[in-house]
Amino acid sequence: MPDLLPPPPDGSFASDNSAGVSPEVLTALSVANAGPALAYGEDPWSRRAEAALRDAFDAPVESIACWGGTGANVVALATVLEPWQAVICPDSAHIVVDECGAPARFTGATVIPVRTDDGKLTPDALDLYSAWRGSEHHPQPALVSISQVTEMGTVYSVEEIGTLCDHAHARGLLVHVDGARIANALVATASGLPSMVRDTGVDVLTLGFTKTGAMYGEVVVFLRPELARRAVFVRKQAGQLASKSRFVAAQVLAMLEDDLWLRNARHANEMAARLADAVSGIPGVALLRQPEANAVFVTLPGDAIAPLQDWSFFWEWDLGASLVRWMTGFATTEEDVARFAAGVCAVVVP
Amino acid sequence: MPDLLPPPPDGSFASDNSAGVSPEVLTALSVANAGPALAYGEDPWSRRAEAALRDAFDAPVESIACWGGTGANVVALATVLEPWQAVICPDSAHIVVDECGAPARFTGATVIPVRTDDGKLTPDALDLYSAWRGSEHHPQPALVSISQVTEMGTVYSVEEIGTLCDHAHARGLLVHVDGARIANALVATASGLPSMVRDTGVDVLTLGFTKTGAMYGEVVVFLRPELARRAVFVRKQAGQLASKSRFVAAQVLAMLEDDLWLRNARHANEMAARLADAVSGIPGVALLRQPEANAVFVTLPGDAIAPLQDWSFFWEWDLGASLVRWMTGFATTEEDVARFAAGVCAVVVP
Amino acid sequence: MPDLLPPPPDGSFASDNSAGVSPEVLTALSVANAGPALAYGEDPWSRRAEAALRDAFDAPVESIACWGGTGANVVALATVLEPWQAVICPDSAHIVVDECGAPARFTGATVIPVRTDDGKLTPDALDLYSAWRGSEHHPQPALVSISQVTEMGTVYSVEEIGTLCDHAHARGLLVHVDGARIANALVATASGLPSMVRDTGVDVLTLGFTKTGAMYGEVVVFLRPELARRAVFVRKQAGQLASKSRFVAAQVLAMLEDDLWLRNARHANEMAARLADAVSGIPGVALLRQPEANAVFVTLPGDAIAPLQDWSFFWEWDLGASLVRWMTGFATTEEDVARFAAGVCAVVVP
Amino acid sequence: MPDLLPPPPDGSFASDNSAGVSPEVLTALSVANAGPALAYGEDPWSRRAEAALRDAFDAPVESIACWGGTGANVVALATVLEPWQAVICPDSAHIVVDECGAPARFTGATVIPVRTDDGKLTPDALDLYSAWRGSEHHPQPALVSISQVTEMGTVYSVEEIGTLCDHAHARGLLVHVDGARIANALVATASGLPSMVRDTGVDVLTLGFTKTGAMYGEVVVFLRPELARRAVFVRKQAGQLASKSRFVAAQVLAMLEDDLWLRNARHANEMAARLADAVSGIPGVALLRQPEANAVFVTLPGDAIAPLQDWSFFWEWDLGASLVRWMTGFATTEEDVARFAAGVCAVVVP
Repeated sequence: MPDLLPPPPDGSFASDNSAGVSPEVLTALSVANAGPALAYGEDPWSRRAEAALRDAFDAPVESIACWGGTGANVVALATVLEPWQAVICPDSAHIVVDECGAPARFTGATVIPVRTDDGKLTPDALDLYSAWRGSEHHPQPALVSISQVTEMGTVYSVEEIGTLCDHAHARGLLVHVDGARIANALVATASGLPSMVRDTGVDVLTLGFTKTGAMYGEVVVFLRPELARRAVFVRKQAGQLASKSRFVAAQVLAMLEDDLWLRNARHANEMAARLADAVSGIPGVALLRQPEANAVFVTLPGDAIAPLQDWSFFWEWDLGASLVRWMTGFATTEEDVARFAAGVCAVVVP
Repeated sequence: MPDLLPPPPDGSFASDNSAGVSPEVLTALSVANAGPALAYGEDPWSRRAEAALRDAFDAPVESIACWGGTGANVVALATVLEPWQAVICPDSAHIVVDECGAPARFTGATVIPVRTDDGKLTPDALDLYSAWRGSEHHPQPALVSISQVTEMGTVYSVEEIGTLCDHAHARGLLVHVDGARIANALVATASGLPSMVRDTGVDVLTLGFTKTGAMYGEVVVFLRPELARRAVFVRKQAGQLASKSRFVAAQVLAMLEDDLWLRNARHANEMAARLADAVSGIPGVALLRQPEANAVFVTLPGDAIAPLQDWSFFWEWDLGASLVRWMTGFATTEEDVARFAAGVCAVVVP
Repeated sequence: MPDLLPPPPDGSFASDNSAGVSPEVLTALSVANAGPALAYGEDPWSRRAEAALRDAFDAPVESIACWGGTGANVVALATVLEPWQAVICPDSAHIVVDECGAPARFTGATVIPVRTDDGKLTPDALDLYSAWRGSEHHPQPALVSISQVTEMGTVYSVEEIGTLCDHAHARGLLVHVDGARIANALVATASGLPSMVRDTGVDVLTLGFTKTGAMYGEVVVFLRPELARRAVFVRKQAGQLASKSRFVAAQVLAMLEDDLWLRNARHANEMAARLADAVSGIPGVALLRQPEANAVFVTLPGDAIAPLQDWSFFWEWDLGASLVRWMTGFATTEEDVARFAAGVCAVVVP
Repeated sequence: MPDLLPPPPDGSFASDNSAGVSPEVLTALSVANAGPALAYGEDPWSRRAEAALRDAFDAPVESIACWGGTGANVVALATVLEPWQAVICPDSAHIVVDECGAPARFTGATVIPVRTDDGKLTPDALDLYSAWRGSEHHPQPALVSISQVTEMGTVYSVEEIGTLCDHAHARGLLVHVDGARIANALVATASGLPSMVRDTGVDVLTLGFTKTGAMYGEVVVFLRPELARRAVFVRKQAGQLASKSRFVAAQVLAMLEDDLWLRNARHANEMAARLADAVSGIPGVALLRQPEANAVFVTLPGDAIAPLQDWSFFWEWDLGASLVRWMTGFATTEEDVARFAAGVCAVVVP
């Protein structure tokens, strides 16, 4: 261990939730604070946000604003699922691993995790449970849920999503995308919501803004309005209807305006690429793969992890494998990357 | 109907959620936006908010920050209830009427509404279901839930809460207070959290800040730490754990600082009293009762309601009875009250 | 207290569940035990029972055999309800009082008990919650559930059920009948399943056989097949699908054959009338009302209850009011009635 | 295909549920039908059955009689689990595959299927989710559930169960055994309930009688009484409390008397071994493994399956692999086995 480490970065690589919010968001909240407005979604900001989302998708989507990501996933799934149905998803899915079982508890449905290495579900996985269909003995496969960006930092191509949707629909399955980081995927693939989500056939999207610079507020987008029929009741019953709803809507509007959310995501992706470059030459540091969005997974010498965490905290991903995850965000600076890489180097190559 | 109505008030009497947020809250959000912080409650603001709440109660309370009121009530109840247990509450309770059945769905427990006129539960109601105890055929009464301020705008005295708690505890029942407007009750009774909540024996409190000037964020307070044992898991599973948790905590701190929340509540109560005074002399306008906090319930001539709503919206409370509810808030001005009363007068006495 | 009581009756007046089963049922179980049969409803007995039920209703009903009454009520309600909906029922309903909250837990729906004295819901009760419709803040009234015979031993006339159904349907509500004792009501009103259930417009019926002489097995009958769409999945998920299903079906067939269930019910009703006659002259014994089916509710001198229970057990209905319930069944004999009345007389008029 | 097939067996190899019930069971039901008895478990037969089970385990076990296997598994799991906890089990587990998601819906808990080939969980699987413990983000592993006999027809040795229990307990996990066919496992391993269940450290057992000759009725056995604290409420709420409970208890007593259930199971196992022998020499018929209990898994030429099913029905286990399952039961005769093997031979080797 080196006696002297460089100063740690000002920003954190622990999570893309570690940063605060974009200045534009704070401004929007302040502007929305003028005068009274009806609560619980009956305000004009909410109407404008819905219109802005229809514009963004260039489609008559129904959107339902929620508090946070877990709640939005719950609302997305509970709106379209029956309790005796089943969801097929990768075993690393946020709805399996990181939501304390919220979707399963609230929907009553069975969540079937499928083993993957890179977090990406392949179409053949949809056939695994076809034999269950129609028999009351088995949970009825009804929906495929994927994360874009995946929890492993990988990104589905637009074509891959289209193929998955085609396979799913041919088997009577809906497709849900957990898009907590979909902005990062959009810039990574140089595509837009219409091409990646609308044209591929995605049925329901959890559209995330928090990890891309908002304070709170995620939106469930139903690509076909008839799927949203039960959504407002589900949202209320799931505790996801904001009282002072104008402040959620104001953030959505701020994020969409001039593509702030995409600019933020692009910056985050660039910082991840820069970080990967910066550490890839350090002996003992091995990239799990080239970053596709804003996550850098690397293996480190086992004894380097704890001192590095003490210096600038991040999460271990797999304890046995010395695999760690570094996330970049809209607020990550080039200076942050440089200092962090220097620290890694100092600890790993003392 | 008069041809010419006075200009409507700038503020709204529809709800205490209609106002935006206190300027101090916006400032606190902005200040909290400096630098990175761990997410999901692992930030220093959350630690400070917990300490501030222990100070406010002068007791080692456990507090769990949630997104909103329905979610916080769900977390409060689900943390201490089993699915085969029952909650006794007034039939006007928010958990019965205004949360789309969220507490019942999430807990699985039976919610037993007791008929009341003024929204206040009396101790004898607790005996109604004593015969159910111990038999597996019946839901097991386990908790009493009251609202302070009640949904009918009435306020329990500190002594009434104490008596209710004593009765409940003697029957093996816990006591939950839905305190979405507890600040208004505290100033109405000139008491504090220690005397009204800690010393009376309340077990669990949903402590509201949104209706008193915050943007979002309600806190579940467990008066005895052992009751909170399951709380963090319930919160996560209920979709009530904020990712950028520092911004909830920063609002709690801002509201508690220099008693901002109580000053806001006192102002709201004063405006309700002023409004009651201003309309009480108008022929055809009858106060249901003198306002005890920040709600004014009045009956109006039936044909006056719609034109008044068109002019400055408010909610009818009981359609058959021409009973309407006017709420005041921290942002209600004397000018708002004067204009609103003038409009009422102009419509009712044309 | 008398030193010497007459010998207690062989039968019990505690419940119509206290008797065993009709001899014809035992015979049918034995006959059905010949040879192999596919399990889980795929057997020929199940097909025959379904056909027999269609004959009994003279309508293309869908029927779903369940294990017991609580399970059948759960399946009936969960098949047609969404979790954010509400059920309106009398406050004495079995689904409220006697099922440990099973329907509320399994459906997630809100159960709204309406105060009644005689256990019978009147049409005006359906209007109580009309204002809730359409707003996501409130549980959505969707179904009315009544018991026929009621828990208070009263019987709806066919006309009353028809009026209730008309009112319900006009308000978009379905009607469920908990018919654990519907056989007793059919004979009490000299009507049949077609006139009482099909022609009145009942949507879903829990059709009970156990209290009328079967060993186990209750059937959920959907009067309109489209309501049953989700039923087999709900039944399986509710743990109500019998593996050796032929034995449930065989009992249904035995009960319907030559109207065994109605003959059993008629006998039970007659024994209740006889018991009411026999005790009505005893000083200190007051009939709550003339028995309408197979329940006799009487008030007794408070100090007579315990010694009578020791002698031949029955349940107190309301402890404060010295109100007790005596049930007769298919196995109650005239001798049982005579002895029981003699014992009552001996204890009350010592 | 042969023009002429031998006559099909009288018995069925489709399931051990295809047979009816042991004659002793019918007799016991008939004997129990004498006189009145309190319902809902308050009868003397239920007391005697509980005592008989304590004798069978030679331990102060708490036992809770349920209607069927799915219901009993639900009661077992819901009694000891919290909704935010997780169950680890093989991916072929009945609670995953064959109960339409009932345990997940009723408990709210996460069910984590672990891939196995032979249906047997190995201790290392318990470590897979250790990293989840203590963090509110993840479902909390709390229980391991195994089937004995497994769904793949394999049998854990007593030592294997002991090792699994030790591993589980060392990690704070309870152990549940789905013993729908535990009688077959007991005779296969020449062990008893005390050695296989009590001494190994199993915490909760679903004790099956239906597949071994009863008409209905499975019992949840809590090996340590304190685990059963919530069981009666869970059972009632899960719709698993029989009204005429004496008839469940009478069957339990009949099955335990003179080890009827073990004699039935031994016979079934012997018939499976005999069937395996009889078909093992047929070209094109390959045993998946030597039968360990009463299931014979074989692969057949793909085009032989349908004609054989038409002749004497059985279930395909894996459609792609031409793998079928033949089950023997207490009523399978040597003649059944001989005829069935002859039919297989005639179809496969025409």
